[in-house]
Amino acid sequence: MTVREGSEGDTETRGDIRRRLSLAEFQAAGLANVSPVAQKESVPLADAVGRVAAEAVRARIPLPAFRRSAVDGYALRAEDRDRALAVVGKTTAGHPPQRSVGPGEAMMLTTGAMVPEGADAVALVERCRVQDGMVQVEEPVRPGQHISPIGEDFHVGQVLVDVDRVLEPVDVAALASQGVEYIEVWRRPRVGVVSTGDELVPLGQPLGAAQVYDVNGSVLMAMVRAAGADPVWLGRLEDRYPVVRDGLERARDRADWDVLVSSGGTGASIPVFQEMPVEELHDLMPAVLGEVGQLLAHGIRMTPGRPTALGRLGGRPAFLLPGWPYAVLVHFEMVVAPALAKMAHRPAPARRRVAARLAAAVAPSPDLTRIIQAQLVADEGGQLVAHLLMPPAPPSASRIMTQMLTADGFVVVERGERLAAGEEVAVWVSSAGSSPVGSRDQGRRD
Amino acid sequence: MTVREGSEGDTETRGDIRRRLSLAEFQAAGLANVSPVAQKESVPLADAVGRVAAEAVRARIPLPAFRRSAVDGYALRAEDRDRALAVVGKTTAGHPPQRSVGPGEAMMLTTGAMVPEGADAVALVERCRVQDGMVQVEEPVRPGQHISPIGEDFHVGQVLVDVDRVLEPVDVAALASQGVEYIEVWRRPRVGVVSTGDELVPLGQPLGAAQVYDVNGSVLMAMVRAAGADPVWLGRLEDRYPVVRDGLERARDRADWDVLVSSGGTGASIPVFQEMPVEELHDLMPAVLGEVGQLLAHGIRMTPGRPTALGRLGGRPAFLLPGWPYAVLVHFEMVVAPALAKMAHRPAPARRRVAARLAAAVAPSPDLTRIIQAQLVADEGGQLVAHLLMPPAPPSASRIMTQMLTADGFVVVERGERLAAGEEVAVWVSSAGSSPVGSRDQGRRD
Repeated sequence: MTVREGSEGDTETRGDIRRRLSLAEFQAAGLANVSPVAQKESVPLADAVGRVAAEAVRARIPLPAFRRSAVDGYALRAEDRDRALAVVGKTTAGHPPQRSVGPGEAMMLTTGAMVPEGADAVALVERCRVQDGMVQVEEPVRPGQHISPIGEDFHVGQVLVDVDRVLEPVDVAALASQGVEYIEVWRRPRVGVVSTGDELVPLGQPLGAAQVYDVNGSVLMAMVRAAGADPVWLGRLEDRYPVVRDGLERARDRADWDVLVSSGGTGASIPVFQEMPVEELHDLMPAVLGEVGQLLAHGIRMTPGRPTALGRLGGRPAFLLPGWPYAVLVHFEMVVAPALAKMAHRPAPARRRVAARLAAAVAPSPDLTRIIQAQLVADEGGQLVAHLLMPPAPPSASRIMTQMLTADGFVVVERGERLAAGEEVAVWVSSAGSSPVGSRDQGRRD
Repeated sequence: MTVREGSEGDTETRGDIRRRLSLAEFQAAGLANVSPVAQKESVPLADAVGRVAAEAVRARIPLPAFRRSAVDGYALRAEDRDRALAVVGKTTAGHPPQRSVGPGEAMMLTTGAMVPEGADAVALVERCRVQDGMVQVEEPVRPGQHISPIGEDFHVGQVLVDVDRVLEPVDVAALASQGVEYIEVWRRPRVGVVSTGDELVPLGQPLGAAQVYDVNGSVLMAMVRAAGADPVWLGRLEDRYPVVRDGLERARDRADWDVLVSSGGTGASIPVFQEMPVEELHDLMPAVLGEVGQLLAHGIRMTPGRPTALGRLGGRPAFLLPGWPYAVLVHFEMVVAPALAKMAHRPAPARRRVAARLAAAVAPSPDLTRIIQAQLVADEGGQLVAHLLMPPAPPSASRIMTQMLTADGFVVVERGERLAAGEEVAVWVSSAGSSPVGSRDQGRRD
């Protein structure tokens, strides 16, 4: 992995971007920096959907475990099908037959009942004429008819669930068929969350002059949980060197997180405010991580929010996100979520892609990958048209969330990419499905 | 809504299907039978993603709430930009300025800091030359430069979250910016779950001859939870009239569920085993629901598993699913899940659709909508090809789960629809994303 040091502030207008990684390089570095969680835990089947199997489970009993009648009808010997047969009893599902079926005999069965010994076929009840304790079958009967043989569905030794399977309801069904109550799954990644900034006030408390609420703390806790991981709140740090240093040292000494995600303090005031004493420096996170742990990369050639950093703390991966909430939202999704998926033994998280034609051209940006929010509307012909919500001019591009509130998704415009009006693009639509387009697209065929 | 009575057993081969509803009719009847949950509850923001807002939230404080510096730099009067200015202090984020900026003065600011009174612009620190307590700006400065005005992102009264919004991380950010700790969401639907069948044994207990584990109980509990609803276990009922009647009466008298979902006992042995005394009848659920509550519809012209029924119990909706686990899995997804979504104030649940070419032709079925499991493979050109896992011949079509374990998704083949080899079809791919195709398709652009 390429080691870079950050030197850029959290400013859309600043200069030197050559030392930053591209988005793809940063994503790859982030993935290389994390490992799948090795710990397992046992969960009841009712909680298993969406978890990731940490064990392979094979069928230990066949399904069905006995010759099972597939219909309501009469068990008999196929060779007897032309004779009137004596009805020798009844077997319902869940109860073993009281006797076997001999030549010239038949036994009434309900669907799911065990077929008695001696019988090798079941005649459908609607095709039987019953009178005076005798039954006459009115259709051809072949051996095996309407009998589900042992192991027809699952045979013993068949792999029902493999390691790293993201469990679906059908897996619960397969496990339940074995009488299994619990399954071993990978423990969820535990994500330590840190907010930094003198200006932050916890939610619910009064806001003083020049202060803002700690948006990122709540956003990161919520995004971690929505990503199927467990957030661990590590606290809020003021922008002072001893506080940040102490905070990261205390985080390093805790064993209850697998990956750290922070927000704020990732710009680089240090080179530009050189006259400030060290204890007054701001934007300290990458520098202090480099002291207390290891700084691996700093800066993504991407907007919004370029100064995300990557490193290690206490032998574990750390993602330092910028402070602007919009940048946190986008960087978490583009950089942290894929790494969390790898830690959780999952495939990369997905938004759904929807093809749409661009309402207007997009001029190329030579240096930055741009995440641009988009609204989708259907034209007269029902074709989707993407209206890009172009970010405001710098320096506000990373600071404005309001467009994301009304967007249906976003478009990724690569460095140097020029897009024409009417060109087809992929819009990444939220999987939450709250957009009208999402629900329209999600309509079933009938 | 059309009222139908069921008369068909759970048998793929049986005759009269004319009185059953089509899948689309049944889905519509199911939706018409449920209402959105009216109760609300308050959840902390960290738990809010994926919940549905039950209140509209407007911005009560603007964002930003003060004139905010977008960069590290010097606050000044734009008209002073050609002069050497006296540095009169420093304001960092989170702290109100100690004084205003007068003519010929400048104040050092960090990103996010409140711009002092008197100043109407901020000059980027990299474009300033500082010496002996004086600063000289080396670029043009226009009024308002690098200042985020009050309300630039959210203005007071702006609707941040509207009723019925499925909450995403950006909504958490918007709410947190207001200092809000909790949001009112619709209470999740509570789904009463009932299993029926003499043959059922609870998981973890020893299996006797002719018995099977209660797969459906676990599957329904898990699917309800995965659908974002709360399951309520109402118990397991034996297939005897007094037991079923007592069970449904007790369920009717409980107030802790909003919709009931049962499995098993929905065929119709009654007309075909007329010689059996009533207390020995099986497949009693629709008949007893008709006595204790109301039976609205019985039977879907669909395979797998046609004898799903719909009714009301204690003034609340009830879905009676068939007993075969594969049919339960499919009917829950096709019929119950859309109704649960309506109850939860959500758009219809979605699998992702993937376009694929059919590997082989599909002959039409004149009467039944078929749900056919499919595996997806990419051909040499990277195009997806759908290999349909045709169900075994009747009567096993509803009884076999093993194909679903290995499928990537399913194809809906409408009644009478004939599909040619090579024809493009929509494959409904699981949103769990455990299939290789799912993760391949989910790869990001870079």
